Amino acid sequence: MASGNFNKRIYNFSSGPSTLPLSALETAAAEMTNYRGSGMSVMEMSHRSRMYLEIFEEVKASLRAALSVPDTHEILFMQGGATFQFSAVPLNLIGDNGEADYAVTGSFASGAMKEARKYGRINVAASSEDRDFSYIPPQGALKLSPGAKYFYYCANNTIYGTEWQYIPETSGVPIVCDMSSNILSKPVDVSKYGLIFAGVQKNMAPAGMAVVIISKSLAGLELPYTPRIMSYRTAIEKDSMDNTPPCYAIYMLGLTLKWLETQGGVAGMERRKAAKAKILYDVIDASHMFIGTAEKSSRSDMNITFRTTDSELDSRFIKEASELGFANLAGHRSVGGMRASVYNAMPEDGVLALADFMRDFEKKR
Amino acid sequence: MASGNFNKRIYNFSSGPSTLPLSALETAAAEMTNYRGSGMSVMEMSHRSRMYLEIFEEVKASLRAALSVPDTHEILFMQGGATFQFSAVPLNLIGDNGEADYAVTGSFASGAMKEARKYGRINVAASSEDRDFSYIPPQGALKLSPGAKYFYYCANNTIYGTEWQYIPETSGVPIVCDMSSNILSKPVDVSKYGLIFAGVQKNMAPAGMAVVIISKSLAGLELPYTPRIMSYRTAIEKDSMDNTPPCYAIYMLGLTLKWLETQGGVAGMERRKAAKAKILYDVIDASHMFIGTAEKSSRSDMNITFRTTDSELDSRFIKEASELGFANLAGHRSVGGMRASVYNAMPEDGVLALADFMRDFEKKR
Repeated sequence: MASGNFNKRIYNFSSGPSTLPLSALETAAAEMTNYRGSGMSVMEMSHRSRMYLEIFEEVKASLRAALSVPDTHEILFMQGGATFQFSAVPLNLIGDNGEADYAVTGSFASGAMKEARKYGRINVAASSEDRDFSYIPPQGALKLSPGAKYFYYCANNTIYGTEWQYIPETSGVPIVCDMSSNILSKPVDVSKYGLIFAGVQKNMAPAGMAVVIISKSLAGLELPYTPRIMSYRTAIEKDSMDNTPPCYAIYMLGLTLKWLETQGGVAGMERRKAAKAKILYDVIDASHMFIGTAEKSSRSDMNITFRTTDSELDSRFIKEASELGFANLAGHRSVGGMRASVYNAMPEDGVLALADFMRDFEKKR
Repeated sequence: MASGNFNKRIYNFSSGPSTLPLSALETAAAEMTNYRGSGMSVMEMSHRSRMYLEIFEEVKASLRAALSVPDTHEILFMQGGATFQFSAVPLNLIGDNGEADYAVTGSFASGAMKEARKYGRINVAASSEDRDFSYIPPQGALKLSPGAKYFYYCANNTIYGTEWQYIPETSGVPIVCDMSSNILSKPVDVSKYGLIFAGVQKNMAPAGMAVVIISKSLAGLELPYTPRIMSYRTAIEKDSMDNTPPCYAIYMLGLTLKWLETQGGVAGMERRKAAKAKILYDVIDASHMFIGTAEKSSRSDMNITFRTTDSELDSRFIKEASELGFANLAGHRSVGGMRASVYNAMPEDGVLALADFMRDFEKKR
């Protein structure tokens, strides 16, 4: 967290909640007390009112278009984030006494696996814990179980700065993927997935919601004790409105999607994020001070993790950066070091400025 | 929903999401792109940053003060609303093969009871379904089970316009209460409750969060299959931050609580709401056209439900009102008629104007 007092917006490298498009925030501010002549805030609208339903349908359609979601898949807006979803997944998909495969490539994948063990037999299809989660296992290393109800992985690991560079081949076993930290950063072939979910607080909207994209064929296997609010079947049948949805987060997602369209959609995001990540990885690779913590072939374009060989130097780097308006560069408390999260809304200028600061910081020592 | 185009804010009688204090919305708008010189929006703050934690602690302390929550009870901010909580309650409190008592006084109490039946033996302690949920059963009508792990009721029934006028006496069985639609509208003796929860979208903040006030002595009886995100024990241990909390809704709750303080706190709210409700009930009781649908002794001060004897006349009333800027006066789709929800943030002027319109409408026929 920046400790200074800034008249203008700073570069916020938080891993989430994180930077949102400025245009989205400005529109939200302008429409806060009176949304387009409705005489009320979006926060105050009945979720069943005509005006709110227009927002809701538009956001759903925009998201479907942005990710080219096929008609076989339904889009759901659910409360909670990834922690909610990683319980909901087995509670909906594993069936009675079923089994599933999990690839454990970081903290959230590991948490998901532990949770799923409450509900069925869980196989570790792969793990990168042997080298501190610094890499993504290749296809050949995946041990797949033919009887698995689904294969689960986390596409991007924010803490360790790793990202899957391929979609696993599972011989027909439905793939479930936690895309919380890289959704909308590139095109994705949704048809290859049984279920994609993403907490919205990185690339989409304020915390408190998950987007779920689910193949309709997977719904309907709830266990007898699956909570009603976690039932994908119910959410599909009620179009995410069995209960009051997180209306304002949906609206904010719509504003983000409008911005995304002006930036060339997910194809534009893919170009931007590759360029931004390269700027920082180039500094790291040319440095005698900074060390990238992820193996090169598994590096994330969303979370660039690095450190020096001296934790006091790390702290000084983070502190000096913060004073200059580069906020939230500390690595996750479980691993230390530094982490620059460069989600969609982080402007390239911010990354260029950070790269300059990194080079200056090294030069001064 | 008002269909017109309004330059100014209208009177929004929605049952939830619903009117928020204008001052809270104005502050949110002013702080949207740069919160107090932080250089970022509250939406963009890491939930573990110092600045966000200051907001979080302040809101928690304000809520504790506003409701005089004793030290025996913990305050939790959880994602989702009442539908999430009515699953979480049995999943945390009923224990293995346990039983609980439910008072069924409306749609949400009934939904809660159905859901709880997945997890234990549920007794109907009382029901007002025999007269279309138009009343609250008196203490003497409650059939209490000595072995119940808890007694559950819904303090205010938005659809039927009824409100409990007393706290049940349960001979030591912990009381669980859904206060979604009347929390913060009056002082409440929290010490009498084992657990209070409230979806925030009526009197507190935008939809997507529930406030839980739980006696610490009740936590720790989760079932083996209770989802991690629903565990009150975990939420207490992690101070609502096992997962990313709904940060922005918490911030908005803080702005609402600031407004509430300027209005005399919950004591001030109690005076206001009694006055506002009386204005509308007086019109209804003096009318030859409008009929109150709740029995007088059970009337809610939050949701005033009424109708005429002619559903076409009801529709005309709702339509004409909407055109004049009285929005969302239609009753719930399951019961029809009219409903004026007059939560804390509805100004008395709005209620006076509606009362005038009701009298005029009747006079013209």
